[in-house]
Amino acid sequence: MPRRSDSRAKMIEAAAELFRQRGYHATAFSDVIQASGAPRGSTYFHFPGGKQELASEAIALAGDEIEQMVAAAAARCDGPGSFVRALGDMVAARLEGSGYRSGCAIATMVLELAPQNEDLSGEFEKVFGRWCEALAREFAVRGITPGRAAELADLVMSVFEGALVVSRAARRIDSFTTATETLAELVEREPRPVTPVDRAAGPTTHAMPP
Amino acid sequence: MPRRSDSRAKMIEAAAELFRQRGYHATAFSDVIQASGAPRGSTYFHFPGGKQELASEAIALAGDEIEQMVAAAAARCDGPGSFVRALGDMVAARLEGSGYRSGCAIATMVLELAPQNEDLSGEFEKVFGRWCEALAREFAVRGITPGRAAELADLVMSVFEGALVVSRAARRIDSFTTATETLAELVEREPRPVTPVDRAAGPTTHAMPP
Repeated sequence: MPRRSDSRAKMIEAAAELFRQRGYHATAFSDVIQASGAPRGSTYFHFPGGKQELASEAIALAGDEIEQMVAAAAARCDGPGSFVRALGDMVAARLEGSGYRSGCAIATMVLELAPQNEDLSGEFEKVFGRWCEALAREFAVRGITPGRAAELADLVMSVFEGALVVSRAARRIDSFTTATETLAELVEREPRPVTPVDRAAGPTTHAMPP
Repeated sequence: MPRRSDSRAKMIEAAAELFRQRGYHATAFSDVIQASGAPRGSTYFHFPGGKQELASEAIALAGDEIEQMVAAAAARCDGPGSFVRALGDMVAARLEGSGYRSGCAIATMVLELAPQNEDLSGEFEKVFGRWCEALAREFAVRGITPGRAAELADLVMSVFEGALVVSRAARRIDSFTTATETLAELVEREPRPVTPVDRAAGPTTHAMPP
């Protein structure tokens, strides 16, 4: 019998994937039990707050995953354009690998539940905020001013979110690739007045003018 | 008693709004009856194909609305950047006016149903295709080469789709405005090697080099 923490974590992972693929309303606790292999009857022991508590945990998990993805993309590129391209490649690989089922981890729930569900809307907003900050930080350490880095972060986040919607409908990666590659080229042309920071040598703070 | 066509059209409009705000799964025929004021018991008379037929009609209606919105934005701007800005203003006004409930007409359904529901996925794809073509045509008549116009159309469509997701979560327009304004500036800087077409003077065809 799995330990409590194992069982709970597996249920959160399974729920996150189901919410992502078909949404909150079409996912029942019984689906989560089946997909996670958790013992039947354990749902309200692990999640006394019910499905909404499970959703909160899945949203927080999505925030962690996105930050990890941004860090992984940042580790294998140099300029801001190649950073966008690297991130796009990772997101595209996941979408294609899932047969166009796994798009953004929270977007399906956002469109079903925001703004009506105020608690979850606040959590969605926090995750998008975390994503935006992570992106802005990467642009800033690559020579773009902090203010412009924040604007580009908003743009980049929207492009990825939207391209995932369009490509799920098309069941082809073409539109995603065109949108992210066009974006990468535009970002590559951005003026970079700030001295890029050597991230290997120092903490990941915003670059400051010399 | 309303005529058949009135009743049917009102049900399609009501369903489109409900699908948009909360999605396919959370919308029952009884909700559509209530929102449209259609006579109870008329659902399978008007929609023998059930909820999926209602969804098909709502998707087609979304395609019409988007083309009308693109045409309205095109009528009140000159360059490609101001076109993006005009379209953004219209979409933002609708989102704000609805209390952040009305985002893209089909995105919620796309994320719930694609790619699992093959018939509706094909219809989503057609609508995005219509939107993309309408956008590309407007860029092309504003001096951008047809190939580049198609790339920008993919990018612009993704930005709007994604910014609508993010702004619904935030229940503020800031992120939408930043993303679309940043995009408008980038599009404004695009090289325009093709002689712009005077749309008032001729048919809305792709501009050709002189």
